[in-house]
Amino acid sequence: MSTADDYLEFAVRSVVAAGEVTLPHFRVPIAVDDKGGSGYDPVTAADRDAEAVIRAAIAKAYPDHGIRGEEHGFERGRSPYTWVIDPIDGTRSFITGQLHWGMLVALHDGARVVCGVMHQPFVGETWLATAGGASRWRRGGDERVLRTRRCARLADAIVACTTPDMFTTARTREGFSRVRDRAKLVRWGGDCYAYCLLAMGLIDVVVESSLQAWAVQALVPIVESAGGVISGWDGSSCDEGGDIVACGDPALAAEARALLSGDEPRRSPGS
Amino acid sequence: MSTADDYLEFAVRSVVAAGEVTLPHFRVPIAVDDKGGSGYDPVTAADRDAEAVIRAAIAKAYPDHGIRGEEHGFERGRSPYTWVIDPIDGTRSFITGQLHWGMLVALHDGARVVCGVMHQPFVGETWLATAGGASRWRRGGDERVLRTRRCARLADAIVACTTPDMFTTARTREGFSRVRDRAKLVRWGGDCYAYCLLAMGLIDVVVESSLQAWAVQALVPIVESAGGVISGWDGSSCDEGGDIVACGDPALAAEARALLSGDEPRRSPGS
Repeated sequence: MSTADDYLEFAVRSVVAAGEVTLPHFRVPIAVDDKGGSGYDPVTAADRDAEAVIRAAIAKAYPDHGIRGEEHGFERGRSPYTWVIDPIDGTRSFITGQLHWGMLVALHDGARVVCGVMHQPFVGETWLATAGGASRWRRGGDERVLRTRRCARLADAIVACTTPDMFTTARTREGFSRVRDRAKLVRWGGDCYAYCLLAMGLIDVVVESSLQAWAVQALVPIVESAGGVISGWDGSSCDEGGDIVACGDPALAAEARALLSGDEPRRSPGS
Repeated sequence: MSTADDYLEFAVRSVVAAGEVTLPHFRVPIAVDDKGGSGYDPVTAADRDAEAVIRAAIAKAYPDHGIRGEEHGFERGRSPYTWVIDPIDGTRSFITGQLHWGMLVALHDGARVVCGVMHQPFVGETWLATAGGASRWRRGGDERVLRTRRCARLADAIVACTTPDMFTTARTREGFSRVRDRAKLVRWGGDCYAYCLLAMGLIDVVVESSLQAWAVQALVPIVESAGGVISGWDGSSCDEGGDIVACGDPALAAEARALLSGDEPRRSPGS
């Protein structure tokens, strides 16, 4: 019987190995108008190769566990445990050579996420956490335990969002606009990297829309074990993806969720 | 008498040394509502310390050269050469722990930029170029000569821009909107990093507004010596900053500039 920490270190080893097969596809210049030609698509190749490495490691170490990945679908296991994989989260960052993308692996026990890892192989950074344990960052020989920072009001908050184009309905556009109008600053282009910086105490709120389960699960313990909260816009579990809001300071969550959902925000007693 | 290559390698050594004093200020968590307290502002401290290191190196190596920097102002030299320094370009990326910021050093000879360097100390990357020479990227022991990619039509282009909020006038908002509406994809949050990825052949167009001279000059040879073009929106020199457009494929520049300026874009003969 493995513990959450054993699962976590297994996930770290697997995703670091997958990073090695990913990097040869990163920053490979291809002609933009090459519709036929070799058919080489760097991000598809990286996604496929990386997920294959992680799936092979899981099949060997935990043959009765399920696996759910972006590229190769859902294989139900004999045990309640399911590994949830997003081999390249932030594919648009990846194809443009930017750095705010990552490789996500989570383990779900049927009720909640047990542990999660985000790895950025080009920069050599890894964020890792168990539910109820510590949220940590590693690079080379360095390791830090992470804590979110206090920021109880949206007017003081730095908000991150991957792109304004992700809000494709009037409801989500209006919800995000209400948050954006009250925030101190909005930063774009984050993908999974923004949640990790929130866990580090450098960003206060992340708001996104229409995420897949595999793009979220690994981030749940990274945010929560650092002291933050992450949920759907209505406060429900975000394990299955959807419209996501993460707050470094739990005291900010009510204001953010109310604005996103279109309810009148509750005033705090002192304001 | 130094050659452009000597100036370039001097600039690289200086900015790498400045990177060392910058990193201790990167990702230092501070309370967001700490209005008084220690008064410690990481990006101001990093800007000041980095520029001081570069200025000291210049004063020692080239005492008759001028120096123009964001933090410490303009010291005119006895020679026509002026070093132009942006110690931290992308301060909002810096304060949020993101990676798309850089340290910029250029040398201007009174008529044009002689050489330019962009350095990202956390990732350990350096882009460097002389006017009329090569545009190169270095990391550790790796070095690559850079070429932009072909992309002759905006409909096929990936466009980068730091933030939609940088267009503060109706004229610039409308100009950028016309480009955005025709582009294949827009990526946000790039600062100087986006121009370097354009030189690498990974981004096709960068459009920005209201830049300072020190945020642009180092990028001019990095873009031009890789085969791209960089100018004001009207095609004029961008050495003094302002509204900037860079294109990896010079064939795309006429379409982009016409849309930005509000002129009817010229149709190419084949379209």
